[in-house]
Formats: sequence, C-alpha cells, structure tokens
Amino acid sequence: MEPQNYKMIIAYDGSRYYGFEHQPDKDTIQGRLENVISRIAGVEKEELEILGAGRTDAGVHAEGMVISVRLSLSLSPEELKAEMNRYLPDDIACREVKIASDRFHPRYNAVGKTYRYTCYIGDSKDVFRRKFSLPLSFRPDVPAMEEAASYLLGKHDFKSFCGNARMKKSTVRIVDEISIKEKKSFLYFTFHGTGFLQYMVRILVGTLLLVGEGKLRPAEVRDILEAKDRSLAGPTAPAKGLCLMNVDYM
Amino acid sequence: MEPQNYKMIIAYDGSRYYGFEHQPDKDTIQGRLENVISRIAGVEKEELEILGAGRTDAGVHAEGMVISVRLSLSLSPEELKAEMNRYLPDDIACREVKIASDRFHPRYNAVGKTYRYTCYIGDSKDVFRRKFSLPLSFRPDVPAMEEAASYLLGKHDFKSFCGNARMKKSTVRIVDEISIKEKKSFLYFTFHGTGFLQYMVRILVGTLLLVGEGKLRPAEVRDILEAKDRSLAGPTAPAKGLCLMNVDYM
Repeated sequence: MEPQNYKMIIAYDGSRYYGFEHQPDKDTIQGRLENVISRIAGVEKEELEILGAGRTDAGVHAEGMVISVRLSLSLSPEELKAEMNRYLPDDIACREVKIASDRFHPRYNAVGKTYRYTCYIGDSKDVFRRKFSLPLSFRPDVPAMEEAASYLLGKHDFKSFCGNARMKKSTVRIVDEISIKEKKSFLYFTFHGTGFLQYMVRILVGTLLLVGEGKLRPAEVRDILEAKDRSLAGPTAPAKGLCLMNVDYM
Repeated sequence: MEPQNYKMIIAYDGSRYYGFEHQPDKDTIQGRLENVISRIAGVEKEELEILGAGRTDAGVHAEGMVISVRLSLSLSPEELKAEMNRYLPDDIACREVKIASDRFHPRYNAVGKTYRYTCYIGDSKDVFRRKFSLPLSFRPDVPAMEEAASYLLGKHDFKSFCGNARMKKSTVRIVDEISIKEKKSFLYFTFHGTGFLQYMVRILVGTLLLVGEGKLRPAEVRDILEAKDRSLAGPTAPAKGLCLMNVDYM
C-alpha cells in the first residue's frame, strides 16, 4: 500500500489531559492518538508523525480539532474511524476521517479557527455541564461586553492578550467575529479569526468579563489593545470553559 | 424559630452515587443532602428527616428531584439555597428552595413525574454527554417505536415492566405521554405518568429499543404488556441515560 495522508476531525473532553501536544510522561491528546493509531496501523509510535491544527492548553476541550497522519493501511476511511473510536478512551472521539492531498498540513493550511467560551449565568449551578463552563457569580452586562468586543475586531497587534511574554514572532492577528449570546442559563462567547496567540481567547474572555462586571469601561479595552502590554488586560479565564469548535481550510 | 417545611428542587449527576436513597456506608444523594443540611441548620443528621419524591437508582440523574425537610432557620429561602450550593459537591445542585405547607409531602402529594432517557445515535461518539446518554450501535426505527409506545399509553398493569419480582403492591400505573424525538445526534424518550415502578422506564426503553432495532414487532409490545411477565420484556436499559426531569404537584 502506498502511504496516504489521512485528515481527521477529533473531539475531546480535555478535563484530564495536559493539553493536545505530546509531552514526555504526560497524558496528552496527541499521545493518546499516537497509541491508538500505532496500534491500528501496526507501526512504532516513533514512526508516526501526527500533525495538529494547533495546540490546545491543558483542560481545554475540542469539538473540531483537525489532525493529519500518513499511513499505509488497507482500511477504508470509515473503517479507520470505527477502529479509532473503538480504541480511543471515552473522552476522545474521532468524528471524521478523510483522505487528504499529500501536501495537506492541518496547521499551515488552516485559514481560520472558531473557539467558543461558555459561562454559566444561572442562579444555581449546572451539574451536567460543570466541566465545560465557568460559573459566574454576577450577571454580566452583555451590551457593554459587545461594545468592548467591537474594539477588538479587525487586524490588530494582540500583544496585550498574549500569554507568552517571550513571544518573538508577530503578535498581529485578525479577529473577524466575537459574538456573545445568552441561551437559557448559559452565556456563549464565539471567536473567529485567522489564528490566536497562546491563551489569547482566555485573556480576551477574562478582559470582557471585567467589562461585564462593571470593573472596566468598554472603551478601556481599546486602550489596553493599543498599549500592547499584557499586564493591563484581564486575567486568563479558566481552561474548562474553552472549546476549539472548528478549523477552516480553503 | 418555629420549624418550617422547606421544599427544594435538586439536580444531580448521579454517575458516582449509589442512587438517591440513604444507605449505610454508601455514597448517596440523600446522604450528601443530610450532611450539608445538618451542617447549615446546626443539627444532628439523625434529627433530620429528608423526604424525597421517589428513589432514583444508582447512576440515574435528576434535573428536578423534589425533597422536603423541616428546619428551624433564620435564613431566607434564597439564602438557604446559596448555602446549599456552597457546600454541596459539584455534581449536586439546589435549584430552588420554597417554604411549603406543613402537610406537604414530596412523595404522597406528587401527581405526576417526567423522565427522559437519552440515546446517542450519531456515527461517532459523544465525548461531552457520554455520562448522560446511551450510545446505540444501530439507527433505530422511530415510527415503529412510536407505534409500540402507543400500546403502552393509558392505565395498565405494568407488571411486565417492573424490576421488582417480589412487588406485592399494585403494579397498575397510568402513563399519559411517551414521546420519542430526534435532535441532532441524540434520541430523547420522554415519559410522563402518575408514577413508575422500579426500573420501569429503563425496561420500557430497553423494550422499545428492541422494536427500534427490528428485533420485536410493535404489536408484540402489547402482547408483552398483557402477559404481565417480566421475562418477556426487553432488558433494563443502562442507568446513565435516565434523568428525572420533573415532579408535578397540584
């Protein structure tokens, strides 16, 4: 069999993992995928190169992480998907398997990403989605957060919202959607952009929530953006509310 | 303070509990409620009588279990609710606290109950609701299950669907709603009736799923009902898909 480049969409509950990316002696999503794919394909883990569309931090979830891996297999994509779901743990699922072009690279070819951050705003607590949402102790001012979000849209240097203080590469990104929707007892922040810096979505949420709580005026978010100074932005919102929803390709 | 009769609505993820009802040396919902209420009210657990609207089995969930407890407190219902949610574990929530009449009894006064059973019918697996849904390995025939369900509606002796073989009391119950709805990758069975026998909803689901899989004809469900013989009905569906949604009072 000629090796083929498989593209897969992976969902996971990141609660118990040290993030997506392989780390020695840590339980990671990539590590789990390596174990299962090496078993199915009958190759050593060291021979596999699993590429991901990006990293997700420890505790962050995904509905639509995209990976690729080159394999020589006699299984159809549907059969491979079934085998993946058979051997993967309960909290990692393979949603789709397709054969991609040889040149397909999930990170370099990605043209956009969608993240969702979920807060619980009911007056009790939610026992069913507690691992996937941040409970708020206040009722946020959504119009104020929407105004603040409007200053963040477009192409900007997001250095103030970058968790990596030693970032040497460009911190310029394009964010073309920030929507904030209430539905029942939940508040959903949806971010779409060309790419996001380390912790960027969580720092944006942490900052918008300060606005929602009345601790920051909406226009101050513009000042924070312009200052290019991480210390002025809000805290990094907890990982458990964040989910990588989708990765776009041309 | 004169003691007052508090009515509470309790939600729980039942995954790690041995059911609702107190059992010595077992972790139960009632046991957890006793711990927290005795602490808030400053009384010994032995002095508390927490009444529930019914039992839920090990692993079964609730959105709307109703309990009552008589307490002498200087807290308002809202304050009591906040204290409950402060001390209860993450997987048990107090959704509402009200002062009820002295004669209110959550089980004797209940006139109806709603249960929901959730199946996952997508072609992958669901990592986010895996503890609250049963994955099916086949695509069920919903119209066939709806026909079978129609034979179960009304006042019947549900002995064939009772998990307690030594049940001495009446096994006659009224079921006035069985709805089966597909939404995205999930299938929801909703049951409403005056009351349900032990394991009854789970045996009804196990039997309807045999119809959905084509292993039983819809009309055979009527024969099973009439036979009053548990051995003819389907298996007891796993606890994790079941949730007590609501208890009705006049």
